[in-house]
Amino acid sequence: MDTTIIVGYIAGTLTTISFVPQVIRTWKLKETKDFSLAMLLLFAAGMLLWTAYGIWINSFPIIAANIVTFGLVLFLLWMKIKYR
Amino acid sequence: MDTTIIVGYIAGTLTTISFVPQVIRTWKLKETKDFSLAMLLLFAAGMLLWTAYGIWINSFPIIAANIVTFGLVLFLLWMKIKYR
Repeated sequence: MDTTIIVGYIAGTLTTISFVPQVIRTWKLKETKDFSLAMLLLFAAGMLLWTAYGIWINSFPIIAANIVTFGLVLFLLWMKIKYR
Repeated sequence: MDTTIIVGYIAGTLTTISFVPQVIRTWKLKETKDFSLAMLLLFAAGMLLWTAYGIWINSFPIIAANIVTFGLVLFLLWMKIKYR
């Protein structure tokens, strides 16, 4: 595996796992006022399309990273609606 | 341009522009308590690496989307530190 691919994998891992501390914090605080609903909706839609793109080009890393992020963002979106 | 590439472009545009309503909301509210600092730091680092990856594979859409998102996330990070 060459360096370029490794950098891509690290980048994808960072952006995906970044949502874990956010979900934990939101779950604990039960507060979502500071979040923009439009941001969460647009981001979730983007993640879905990235997953579709990954399926299309048959790229497992793109599918995996985006489906996990989509799940985490969906959970944030649910909390945003629940704890408004 | 085939459908796959168009889906990729729409996905990238959605995830990038999603940060615009967030930056506007945070700028207006001047409140960032609900945000996880770890999330912003990890996400910003991920964006930088995605930009590096884009330069490496010589992909303008990857460079453009990620550098814009990086700028928006950096602005959120600055507000997170300023309005803690």
